[in-house]
Amino acid sequence: MPSGADTLLLELFAIFVWAKIFGELFERLSLPAVLGEILAGIILGPHAARLIAPTANVYAFAEIGAIFVLFTAGLETRPQDLLRVGRQSLRVALAGVVVPFVLGFFYMRLRGGATHEAVFVAAAMVATSVAITARVLADLHVLNARFARIIMGAAVFDDILGMILLAVVSGIASGGGIRWLHLGVTFAEAVGFALFMIFIGPRIVRRVRPGLRHISLQNAPLVLSLAICLLLSWAAARIGMAAIIGAFFAGLVLADYAPEWRLQPRIHAINEFLAPFFFFTIGARLDVHLFSGDVLLDAFIISLLAVVSKVVGCGLPVLREGRPTALRVGIGMMPRGEVALIVALVGLQMNMVSQSAYAIVIFMTGFTTIMAPPLLRVLIRDQSGGKGTAAPALVAAREGGGDGA
Amino acid sequence: MPSGADTLLLELFAIFVWAKIFGELFERLSLPAVLGEILAGIILGPHAARLIAPTANVYAFAEIGAIFVLFTAGLETRPQDLLRVGRQSLRVALAGVVVPFVLGFFYMRLRGGATHEAVFVAAAMVATSVAITARVLADLHVLNARFARIIMGAAVFDDILGMILLAVVSGIASGGGIRWLHLGVTFAEAVGFALFMIFIGPRIVRRVRPGLRHISLQNAPLVLSLAICLLLSWAAARIGMAAIIGAFFAGLVLADYAPEWRLQPRIHAINEFLAPFFFFTIGARLDVHLFSGDVLLDAFIISLLAVVSKVVGCGLPVLREGRPTALRVGIGMMPRGEVALIVALVGLQMNMVSQSAYAIVIFMTGFTTIMAPPLLRVLIRDQSGGKGTAAPALVAAREGGGDGA
Repeated sequence: MPSGADTLLLELFAIFVWAKIFGELFERLSLPAVLGEILAGIILGPHAARLIAPTANVYAFAEIGAIFVLFTAGLETRPQDLLRVGRQSLRVALAGVVVPFVLGFFYMRLRGGATHEAVFVAAAMVATSVAITARVLADLHVLNARFARIIMGAAVFDDILGMILLAVVSGIASGGGIRWLHLGVTFAEAVGFALFMIFIGPRIVRRVRPGLRHISLQNAPLVLSLAICLLLSWAAARIGMAAIIGAFFAGLVLADYAPEWRLQPRIHAINEFLAPFFFFTIGARLDVHLFSGDVLLDAFIISLLAVVSKVVGCGLPVLREGRPTALRVGIGMMPRGEVALIVALVGLQMNMVSQSAYAIVIFMTGFTTIMAPPLLRVLIRDQSGGKGTAAPALVAAREGGGDGA
Repeated sequence: MPSGADTLLLELFAIFVWAKIFGELFERLSLPAVLGEILAGIILGPHAARLIAPTANVYAFAEIGAIFVLFTAGLETRPQDLLRVGRQSLRVALAGVVVPFVLGFFYMRLRGGATHEAVFVAAAMVATSVAITARVLADLHVLNARFARIIMGAAVFDDILGMILLAVVSGIASGGGIRWLHLGVTFAEAVGFALFMIFIGPRIVRRVRPGLRHISLQNAPLVLSLAICLLLSWAAARIGMAAIIGAFFAGLVLADYAPEWRLQPRIHAINEFLAPFFFFTIGARLDVHLFSGDVLLDAFIISLLAVVSKVVGCGLPVLREGRPTALRVGIGMMPRGEVALIVALVGLQMNMVSQSAYAIVIFMTGFTTIMAPPLLRVLIRDQSGGKGTAAPALVAAREGGGDGA
């Protein structure tokens, strides 16, 4: 019998169970379960206890797990709801890119870093990683709240802006300067993709829907939904966006038909199985040994700047919606993720960034990722009567209907 | 953005969609969808059209897909139902091992093959691969019928016997003879595992059940079920059985609580997503170029012997249940799978088996795999009033309740 299956199964079992055990412990401490899953990865992963070193196959499951986290979030976001907050989301995303970049750049220059290094670290502070926020919002059943919609919308814009910034930065770094034409095409593709998904995608689904009756396959709506999810995730990655943004669009496109097709409980189940591998590997990637003395201090300051800049940059544009909403949006946009790590890695490979600056970016990513969920949870729980939130009872009822079927 | 995610997503999308398109075409031709999924792999795979060459990551998804096919089948099989057919299943498995081995051995000797080669080819004809049969039975909603239970029970015994045979054959082949003590331990482990799962496993779940109320995690029953599935699959592989048999046991252990915990629609959804990768890769592994002239004739005869020997060997012991049941059991036990391929591969690596004998085994595996689903379907559809089948209406109602929730 093949021993390959053997190790893969043991790995998946160990990761799944440890992630869930840590999740349960965190739930009992009134902390978000997702944070427990990440911590399980940090503690048991290859940089600390070395109990579990995820293999390439596990990372593949993790990638698809991230897809389903955003697909699930998308399914609970109707396009018209997203459009209603479109202007706020755009403002949040824009300011949320500018403020962190400026703060990061000036701190790194002040500290004596070279201009190109400062540019890379600043660029790494820009892109929000929405997977963790989406999971926390889903766990708290507030994905339908107004501030949650602003966050999800801003995440879409943010991803487009982050992509452009990455192209600009690596263009500068490669010495070839900025290739404006290429940049323009990339930008147009991303905007076109987003507009198509929001305005035309749902109409296509509406047109296709009656045809499903003629399909002989069992579970035709589920099969179609999974195919759309994989297709849009791939398409988003293909044009240079994050694959998970494509998965979010797939959910968005199908959101209106999710109750009719009973998608939520089924997609939730797939998510329940695959997502722990994603969150565990986030933790497993974090090397706690990179930090010492000066680097740690810089890392800490940059992390605080990363938090403050997003809270200010993303919170201010929606201050008129009330302080609770502004704060939640700011904190929700706080986590940095794979884009930050890629920017830093590109810089490292091009010798534009030192090992210590690289470590700083990794620390900042971990710090913002780990701080966001408990803060978000406290804000939402404590101020659940605040402006901009759907009444808890209503949300619970709606969620229960989708989840429990 | 990482291009790794990009290719993985494209691969998963292409395989998923092509498998489903072929499945739909086959459904429309009143052939089993699973056969279409396999054919998609043969045609588009690396040995024919070369459109899709599955990577290691896809094979990992395929392995877990096979796990969920058997987990789903197990969830619809209550332990007490399996026990009721235990004696018949054991007889079916025993005769289903002896008859193919004898027929295969004598044909290969007759044809002029060496004794050790004949032993390997004969051994490859023994082990039933139940994943395909389980899927066909599930598609036709007859997993609860008596003949289906006999098949699933026999598959468990068959796997234990096949494992012993593999140990014997590779012991002989390695020149060290048979290590009786090791063999005895392996046998005892497998039997102990099976008995534990059937008699004690469900009791443990019954004991644990009230404790679930105290767990704070969302979807605690689903999480527990997934953990049990991964654990038992790994444990089965660990003691030398097929991992999928462990997954079947996991389903069996949980079958009594599946309705209460609403497991079916959720596990079905995961299965719906992952299983196509398994069936597609079965097809993709099949190299159609290995066959020419003499080899093709031998391959064809061995394939026919493989069919006849299982139909006779597995059918005769249950003839008193009526001819329809006997025929269904025989055909249901017909597909050979990964164990046959492993036996042949071990023989090839030890220079005990020629390239042509290896090709013959591959052909036989493909032939039995491809012939079983349409035959099974015709038998079940045409004779659905026959002895040993639950009334179709009843089965449909039961299935609809589990599936549609």
